Amino acid sequence: MKDLPFGFDVIEGSRLDRFDHHIERPLSTLKGLFADAQAYQRMLAEGDRMVYEVYEVRRPAKAGELLTGLSVVHPGRVGGEYFMTKGHYHLVRETAEIYYGVAGRGLLLMQEEGGGWAVEEFRPGRAVYVPPCWAHRSVNTGDEDLVTLFAYPGHAGHDYGAIEQCGFQKLVLRRDGEPQLVDNAAWARAMETR
Amino acid sequence: MKDLPFGFDVIEGSRLDRFDHHIERPLSTLKGLFADAQAYQRMLAEGDRMVYEVYEVRRPAKAGELLTGLSVVHPGRVGGEYFMTKGHYHLVRETAEIYYGVAGRGLLLMQEEGGGWAVEEFRPGRAVYVPPCWAHRSVNTGDEDLVTLFAYPGHAGHDYGAIEQCGFQKLVLRRDGEPQLVDNAAWARAMETR
Repeated sequence: MKDLPFGFDVIEGSRLDRFDHHIERPLSTLKGLFADAQAYQRMLAEGDRMVYEVYEVRRPAKAGELLTGLSVVHPGRVGGEYFMTKGHYHLVRETAEIYYGVAGRGLLLMQEEGGGWAVEEFRPGRAVYVPPCWAHRSVNTGDEDLVTLFAYPGHAGHDYGAIEQCGFQKLVLRRDGEPQLVDNAAWARAMETR
Repeated sequence: MKDLPFGFDVIEGSRLDRFDHHIERPLSTLKGLFADAQAYQRMLAEGDRMVYEVYEVRRPAKAGELLTGLSVVHPGRVGGEYFMTKGHYHLVRETAEIYYGVAGRGLLLMQEEGGGWAVEEFRPGRAVYVPPCWAHRSVNTGDEDLVTLFAYPGHAGHDYGAIEQCGFQKLVLRRDGEPQLVDNAAWARAMETR
C-alpha cells in the first residue's frame, strides 16, 4: 500500500483534528511527580483534574520517520509547583526533539545524565531544540493551556524510568507571583544514594 | 563542548531571530524552473525579484538530529504559475519531513518516483507530513508570504537533480482567479525519453 502524505490541523486552540492516540494524564496518574505530596493528596481529594494531554500522530518507529503531535499542559499548581509533564529521556539517547509554541506560556526544563541542566522559554512562535541526550519536561507557568507541537525521530523511544526515580534537578515553583527555578532536594538525595 | 539546548523565534511574521544559513533564491537563480520561459525572461528584464528564502538552523548531519528552519515563499506568478521552491527529494530517500504553516496560504506539491503525486494545503495552524520517498515543493497561491516551519532527519540530504531534469507532474497555475493543478507536458516528455 502506498504511504500517502497527509495533513492535520491544530483546532480550537488546543487539539488536533486528526490523531492516532490521545494520551490523558489526570492527577491520579501522576502520584510522586510533584514535590509536595500533601498538596497533591489534598488536590486529588477535591477531584481528578486533567494535568496534561498528548495527541500523537503515529508513524513507523524507524530512523527516517518523524513522530509528531500536540502537547497540551493545562494551567494549575500542586502546592506551589506548576502543572507539568512527567518528562523523559529518549530510549535511544542520540536523538533530538524540536518543539514549537502554539499557545500559552511555559518552560521546557531539560537535563542530561552528566549533571547539566537547562531551561528554555515556550511562547507562541518560538521553537526549542532539544539536542540528543537531554531529558525534557514541559511546564505551564501561565494561566491558559500551554500548547506545543513536537517532532522527534521515529526510532527515539521513551525512557521514563530515570526521571521517575530521581526527578529533575530543578523544580519550577510560583514565588511572589513569578515562576522560579529551585533546587530539588529529592534529586540531590537520589543522586547521592545511586 | 556540551551540546546545549537552544530556542529561536519566528519574528516579524517571516524570518527567524537566530539561524546559521540564509538561502536566497531570486528569479535569476531559477532559470528553467517555471513552465513559461518567455514570461520568465520578461519578468527578469524588469528586475530580479526574490522568489523564496530559507532560514536554516544547522545541526550535525546525523540520523538522530533534526534539521529545522523557516521557508518563506513570496507572492507572485511567472506567467500564470505561482512562485514556488525548486523542490527536491531527500538524498536518503527513506527520510520524512514535517511542515507547519505559520502564515499565508499555499500548497505542498509532492510526487514519488513510482509516478504517484499528491497535494496538501498549507494554512496557518496546519501541519503536513511528507512520508519517506516523496519529493516536495512549496507553492504560494496567496497574496502574502507563505511561511512554513520545517523539520527533517539530520542525515536526509537533498537531491535536486531529479526534479531539475524532469520537473513535477503537475503545475500550479492561476485560472479564473483560482489555483488549479494542470498536467506538466514537459514532465511527460522527460519521462518518455528517460
